[in-house]
Amino acid sequence: MAGDRDDALVVGVDFGTLSGRAVVVRVRDGAELGTAVHEFRHGVLDRAMPDGAPLPPDWALQVPRDYVDVLRTAVPGAIQDAGVDPANVIGIGTDFTACTMIPATSDGTPLCELPEFANNPHAYVKLWKHHAAQPQADRINQVAAARGEKWLPRYGGLISSEWEFAKGLQLLEEAPDVYAAMDHWVEAADWIVWQLTGNYVRNACTAGYKGIHQDGAYPSQDYLRELNPGFAGFVRDKLDHPIGNLGDRAGNLTKLAAYWTGLPEGIAVAVGNVDAHVTAPAAQAVEPGRLVAIMGTSTCHVMNGAELREVPGMCGVVDGGIVPGLWGYEAGQSGVGDIFGWFVDNQVPPAYHEAAAARGISLHDHLTELAARQKPGEHGLLALDWHSGNRSVLVDHELSGVVLGQTLATRPEDIYRALMEATAFGTRVIVESFAESGVPVTELVVAGGLVRNALLMQIYADVTGLPLSTIRSAQGPALGSAMHAAVAAEAYADIRAAAVAMGSVNSGVYRPIPEHTAVYEKLFMEYADLHDHFGRGGNDVMHRLRALRREAVAGR
Amino acid sequence: MAGDRDDALVVGVDFGTLSGRAVVVRVRDGAELGTAVHEFRHGVLDRAMPDGAPLPPDWALQVPRDYVDVLRTAVPGAIQDAGVDPANVIGIGTDFTACTMIPATSDGTPLCELPEFANNPHAYVKLWKHHAAQPQADRINQVAAARGEKWLPRYGGLISSEWEFAKGLQLLEEAPDVYAAMDHWVEAADWIVWQLTGNYVRNACTAGYKGIHQDGAYPSQDYLRELNPGFAGFVRDKLDHPIGNLGDRAGNLTKLAAYWTGLPEGIAVAVGNVDAHVTAPAAQAVEPGRLVAIMGTSTCHVMNGAELREVPGMCGVVDGGIVPGLWGYEAGQSGVGDIFGWFVDNQVPPAYHEAAAARGISLHDHLTELAARQKPGEHGLLALDWHSGNRSVLVDHELSGVVLGQTLATRPEDIYRALMEATAFGTRVIVESFAESGVPVTELVVAGGLVRNALLMQIYADVTGLPLSTIRSAQGPALGSAMHAAVAAEAYADIRAAAVAMGSVNSGVYRPIPEHTAVYEKLFMEYADLHDHFGRGGNDVMHRLRALRREAVAGR
Repeated sequence: MAGDRDDALVVGVDFGTLSGRAVVVRVRDGAELGTAVHEFRHGVLDRAMPDGAPLPPDWALQVPRDYVDVLRTAVPGAIQDAGVDPANVIGIGTDFTACTMIPATSDGTPLCELPEFANNPHAYVKLWKHHAAQPQADRINQVAAARGEKWLPRYGGLISSEWEFAKGLQLLEEAPDVYAAMDHWVEAADWIVWQLTGNYVRNACTAGYKGIHQDGAYPSQDYLRELNPGFAGFVRDKLDHPIGNLGDRAGNLTKLAAYWTGLPEGIAVAVGNVDAHVTAPAAQAVEPGRLVAIMGTSTCHVMNGAELREVPGMCGVVDGGIVPGLWGYEAGQSGVGDIFGWFVDNQVPPAYHEAAAARGISLHDHLTELAARQKPGEHGLLALDWHSGNRSVLVDHELSGVVLGQTLATRPEDIYRALMEATAFGTRVIVESFAESGVPVTELVVAGGLVRNALLMQIYADVTGLPLSTIRSAQGPALGSAMHAAVAAEAYADIRAAAVAMGSVNSGVYRPIPEHTAVYEKLFMEYADLHDHFGRGGNDVMHRLRALRREAVAGR
Repeated sequence: MAGDRDDALVVGVDFGTLSGRAVVVRVRDGAELGTAVHEFRHGVLDRAMPDGAPLPPDWALQVPRDYVDVLRTAVPGAIQDAGVDPANVIGIGTDFTACTMIPATSDGTPLCELPEFANNPHAYVKLWKHHAAQPQADRINQVAAARGEKWLPRYGGLISSEWEFAKGLQLLEEAPDVYAAMDHWVEAADWIVWQLTGNYVRNACTAGYKGIHQDGAYPSQDYLRELNPGFAGFVRDKLDHPIGNLGDRAGNLTKLAAYWTGLPEGIAVAVGNVDAHVTAPAAQAVEPGRLVAIMGTSTCHVMNGAELREVPGMCGVVDGGIVPGLWGYEAGQSGVGDIFGWFVDNQVPPAYHEAAAARGISLHDHLTELAARQKPGEHGLLALDWHSGNRSVLVDHELSGVVLGQTLATRPEDIYRALMEATAFGTRVIVESFAESGVPVTELVVAGGLVRNALLMQIYADVTGLPLSTIRSAQGPALGSAMHAAVAAEAYADIRAAAVAMGSVNSGVYRPIPEHTAVYEKLFMEYADLHDHFGRGGNDVMHRLRALRREAVAGR
């Protein structure tokens, strides 16, 4: 095998929300030899189009050329950073945000690159956090529930507005010309592999989690027709395409892509994948019971199970969705680091900024230090972490944040800590939902940027009562993608073998502190009360406030 | 009459939470000729004693000598500012925060001025916002309800922890030596008059509202014994004393007080009074139906009624409590300007501070301008204004604030506006409680520092649906006190006559805007839902969070 060579290398490329990161990894031990990052030139289009035309609320678009720029800059940059000979690279793997969708022609050209559609927002990439298809998602769920569609429980009973069908139905209903011109409704995860190989292969992960592909089939034409007569052919005409397993070889690197990346033409290119899901093997967490939380702006939870269970409110369960041969479970929290970032940008007075600057540390670190001096319960606050809606287990993006318990003595670090705790309670709701459905969680494995915050990690251990391990790599998704490249290049027999050789984890480095756990037990009961009251129909005030906001904005 | 002299003057002195203000007023027309303010040297002792010894949470003390300093500095300062001859002053009147209590010897010496008690917090003034007597207040209410005490409904069914009995019972139970040494439990409103006249006269206003004096009697010895056997003699031994009507002459200015103030010895000194209650005549709002809201750090609502009604959750109804001959109703909100101030100090990022500074305006004014650009409902938020507890109509100082509806797009001006609106909703709850009990409100008359905020005034008109008038004087309480001095000096027959001659109001300057009122109608329903859920037992989470906070702090 090519990987037998002691100096064999693979490249992993992680496409995030604002940038792409490439990493060069040694096949035999997973050593990360070099890395480079490229920021997307257009970032996220959530207020205006590139030409300045305004976008409605809840929209989030991207520009596909920005992704290709990552291949052209970050990959060579990582090779240069590593100081290695690119001739030793035997494969490349990628992971992407999901569900991020591109309307494309039969040769993969994004419709936004056609002159006739250059000014049409619907011809652009709809990013995962494009939340304007909620009316379509509501209908998708109502009709599926009424018909008793058997795939619905595989998604916790609710299909998200973020996913392929809701976004596709919005496209049909709001821009029928764009919909008609589209030959393929393509996950960005697969589109980038298409650019590398010239082949379009759907990956088993997004086809399952975001594309409602279960037991070898998609939702039926009858069902689709009931959503909208024009949508009846959606699967047949726009979506259906051969599916590759994770770690399979999607094809060989084309001459053009070799030119972009500086890598050898013809090397293995792995089937596309998702940022969260590739991270599990990078943290050696592929065995059942280990819940991997990739904590960044949002949190994605992934875990393997030996058996199929239906878990209310999870994002989905997919056969081979994380590694072939196991059922891959996914859940998530729409806002985590995003909430902390919003707080720091919008709610912290000058004295704190000055104190952090004087100490030469970030405001996050300064607030964390102040918050760490408190005991659980001391701030007297309780928060709901729904500033960006709720993905699991309520699947409702019209929910919003709450802070309760403020007095005139409440300080910024108090609220900062309460928000941290709220996200931990949100994770515990997910852990309990899995456990109650027969998918017990025995360990939390944390990856992502927030792993550096020791207070946050301790709070998560204390709130969940679980031992908490942390991924060793600082670039888990890119490493995970590189591991999939190694499997695609046949350096390892499968992703489990690659995980053992190339992944790494700091095992059980945070343990629940009993006296904290006792207080958080009480606070979690309070959180659960608020959660159900505002999230399960006790008081739908958040939905009504959204509606009033829309009316007020529309009336301007 | 002395007031017939065209150049006759009176002095009003308003004792607030942090300072005292004197104003010199012309008797014939209420013209304010000069003013001066003196800040209390010790301010509010809420964290530590003067010697640095720490105070428990919820305590708030003051030092009586600070009050005398106001007489010695602000009164001569106001005379000097007016450029008038003090020989023309025919009377002096005062108003005070309430319920603010001083334990004193038989000659009026505060116990904290005796060497043996100088280090004992219980020997100091317990300021109105001393909130550490809640356990005593709870017992006062339970026992009264169980016994069916007929005075209880006169206080909306609940006696506040801020008032004379709760604070007195705390004194007995926590410092029996101080309690035993005390000859009189004196309202600061009466203590300051005692300093001016050498006579101790209780005023009808605080005796009724804060001292549970109804139909000529206090709570019975039997009742007091049931609270605590040692408390049986509280009324007889510590509280009972002749009561003077508002506007009566409490006595003549002593030689010593004349020396302090520079005013003529022997002039009329009016019976003590309360800041909110003296303001009603200053705003010409003594007739039934005109609810006067004195809006500052907190809001006090006062209104006269021709008949006695029992209003749930009001602070009290007292015969002659505002003007002799009418039933005076009082209600209140514990935190209003205090909440806005807390927000500005703790929740606003540097860019806003810089923008306000660059424009040369206050941060309050800057945020108000930004907030004024929105339509009702546009921010998508709802708040509960309980950061300092709830006085009316829930009478519960263990309640706390809520902000609900935050998204990652929520800005500081959004929350600022939501807090403004929350206080307006709080006032509407009070207005509705009065109306439902047969005491209709037909007009809001606003006095106090917040009257300058035009957006806030418009929101109050829109939320309540009432025409809103504003007091013309910028120093309403001091003017009101001066008017009482004029009555005490017999320049006017009664306070109603003085109100006509000396008071003034901008009538109906804010009118409800129908399209705003329609949105606020919906938002008020949402507020009322949250209010009852968290305030009336739907979810007692705020109480439990307080308890957890106490445990955490105690366990440090």
